[in-house]
Amino acid sequence: MGMTIKEATWSEGKDLAFEINKRVKIAREKYGSDDVINACLGTLADDNGDIIALDSVYKRLDEMDKKDIASYAPIEGEEEYRKLVIETLFANYKPDGYISAIATPGGTGAIRSAIFSYLGVGDPLICHDYYWAPYRKICQEFGRDFRTYEFFTDDFSFNIDAFRKEVETSLKDKDRIAPLINSPGNNPTGYSLSDEEWDQVIEFLKEKAADKNKKITLIVDVAYLEFAGDGDMQRRFFKKFSNLPENLLVIVCFSMSKSHTAYGLRSGAAVAISKNKEIIEEFEISLSHSARCNWSNGTHAAQNILIDLEKEENKGEYLDELVDLRTMLEDRAKEFVEVSKEKNLTMIPYFGGFFTFIPTPNAFDITRKLEGENIFTIPSDKGIRVAICGVAKDKIRRLVEKIAYYINEEK
Amino acid sequence: MGMTIKEATWSEGKDLAFEINKRVKIAREKYGSDDVINACLGTLADDNGDIIALDSVYKRLDEMDKKDIASYAPIEGEEEYRKLVIETLFANYKPDGYISAIATPGGTGAIRSAIFSYLGVGDPLICHDYYWAPYRKICQEFGRDFRTYEFFTDDFSFNIDAFRKEVETSLKDKDRIAPLINSPGNNPTGYSLSDEEWDQVIEFLKEKAADKNKKITLIVDVAYLEFAGDGDMQRRFFKKFSNLPENLLVIVCFSMSKSHTAYGLRSGAAVAISKNKEIIEEFEISLSHSARCNWSNGTHAAQNILIDLEKEENKGEYLDELVDLRTMLEDRAKEFVEVSKEKNLTMIPYFGGFFTFIPTPNAFDITRKLEGENIFTIPSDKGIRVAICGVAKDKIRRLVEKIAYYINEEK
Repeated sequence: MGMTIKEATWSEGKDLAFEINKRVKIAREKYGSDDVINACLGTLADDNGDIIALDSVYKRLDEMDKKDIASYAPIEGEEEYRKLVIETLFANYKPDGYISAIATPGGTGAIRSAIFSYLGVGDPLICHDYYWAPYRKICQEFGRDFRTYEFFTDDFSFNIDAFRKEVETSLKDKDRIAPLINSPGNNPTGYSLSDEEWDQVIEFLKEKAADKNKKITLIVDVAYLEFAGDGDMQRRFFKKFSNLPENLLVIVCFSMSKSHTAYGLRSGAAVAISKNKEIIEEFEISLSHSARCNWSNGTHAAQNILIDLEKEENKGEYLDELVDLRTMLEDRAKEFVEVSKEKNLTMIPYFGGFFTFIPTPNAFDITRKLEGENIFTIPSDKGIRVAICGVAKDKIRRLVEKIAYYINEEK
Repeated sequence: MGMTIKEATWSEGKDLAFEINKRVKIAREKYGSDDVINACLGTLADDNGDIIALDSVYKRLDEMDKKDIASYAPIEGEEEYRKLVIETLFANYKPDGYISAIATPGGTGAIRSAIFSYLGVGDPLICHDYYWAPYRKICQEFGRDFRTYEFFTDDFSFNIDAFRKEVETSLKDKDRIAPLINSPGNNPTGYSLSDEEWDQVIEFLKEKAADKNKKITLIVDVAYLEFAGDGDMQRRFFKKFSNLPENLLVIVCFSMSKSHTAYGLRSGAAVAISKNKEIIEEFEISLSHSARCNWSNGTHAAQNILIDLEKEENKGEYLDELVDLRTMLEDRAKEFVEVSKEKNLTMIPYFGGFFTFIPTPNAFDITRKLEGENIFTIPSDKGIRVAICGVAKDKIRRLVEKIAYYINEEK
């Protein structure tokens, strides 16, 4: 006999990336970090494979009054934090309308609360078919219906027709839907929707929202925003969220994990945009209720770090470090793309983010063989996710060559 | 029109304690901390009204490798953290059986996941009728049925008959129930169940579990454990959770917030005890799934602080500081009890924890008047919760006298 309710009983609770990461640790202890390529977990590592913790960020923690670490944050987050999240997130491309941010534990908490508050049981979350697995898990946890469409056309551009078709189909039998798009720097593919592709998405959803019986919530996961361009261009699409119909709400999910190398501090926010003030107030109340009932309040130190970093005397140092990180990642990605071309290895076009992606139907086989050579990547039905965020540039060639070797072997 | 689903639409998302605390901040800025008595929020403050952050705890953070702060914790929590939570929680009174701990954000996360995984929609959570409001909110959030029974007999001992009756009634129409008991040092009353009262609870639930169609989950919130006795006596009841029937699961909710003055770091654990190994494995999988889907993983720094504190060279300093805190709180409580007696003010018997409680049907009126004198407390239908954790001993007399004054005025 079991004790958990049916809806909370699962055959497997382990997360693939975290489980493989445990094997990486064992391999590093056994063989040393030089001989191990850790391309599994989404955290930025230096050329020795050690996680990077930005000085500018952690100096703020060192200097912080202990009272500001020990004390509770307000349930919805520090007021200044909420304000600065909106300012730094949108920068020069802040959409017109009412906007509010509610603090959450990382981006996960924001996505979770968007799905929980805006989809009923059985309502569809509509996601591209290359996706971060927790989107599906969250839908399972709360009985929401996880549906996917083909992310890419044959030449790897955004498949707007597939998107349109899935939205149409879903709206036929459901009045509430939530499309979720993880861009720029999509996890696991590295793809970013172009501004034109965003225009198509928005125009189409506006059309659908002409039916006032429909409630559409567009969830946008921008966890990799700071690593998907020069910090300006990749923000332009935010402006398109201005003046949307009232029954088309946008929730942007912000995370400090990657932008601030603050994964373990668990801080993010759900940021809602609407031209209707009441819809934003309702958002604040609903998400604060969820906060109180699930994690109570956010990590106060992380919120205070963001507040301190935005002070004139600290901001420059952080932005400089961020440019260095971005450049390091771009160099790795460039090397990956070049060697892939050289080896005729098909990859999804990389525009940014922590991952590159090699499509293959034999990913589980191949990644097992790669593990035999101390190369750790993440397999899925669609291919291999390669966390270039964790691999030194001078190891990239070996990494790509080995992948190409085993892919060809399977052919 | 609104956009949130009916089940996630609330008229009021604000938390009373946190809202009143905002007014305290304003009053302190206006009148200075000497003239303000902040007895609203459950955080330990020194005699100046400033929150206490233990040196022994925050030195561990200062000395911690930044990599161990920046990196993700495993979803279920660091293995060593999970082990140490069990050891330090139960100490010499570890129940016999299989035991596992899953990391959560504070005690809130543990309570939330116990309710989410072990009660279906409409199933009753059975709680004493003086209770921490989020228990009820969590039930609302997830459609569980929050039911209460009279906590106390007329002479303020645990009302076992009322408990038995509510359990009986609930089991008549439901196969799953979860009694929740917040003891020792109950919030908001300061009450602790005696070992004999615990015996009665356990014996009765064992009787009810004789019907194998019933699934009973006893949730025990011990957030105030370290402030409810000498650290030993108040743990004896844990041993009673040994060898219970398989369909009577116990989940103890642990929090670092109070014991480590680490409120803002958001770290706790749900600790399950069963004589059946499979039930514990099912618990681990279910709660890990919830973790991944709601907050992803815990604050790594907090887990590492607990691990570091348990090292031989650090443990003594922490335990010494904890004794000092406990003594400070006991002195305040003693003063409160004495002045109350002197003023003939009826209070619920205080055994430990951060709060004393004055029963009155006019709490909202009285606390508003107290605010006029810069005394901040928390009203409820049943009376006034007084956070003595936040009030210097030499202010306690004034605090009690003012409460007695307004209580008598209302009579």
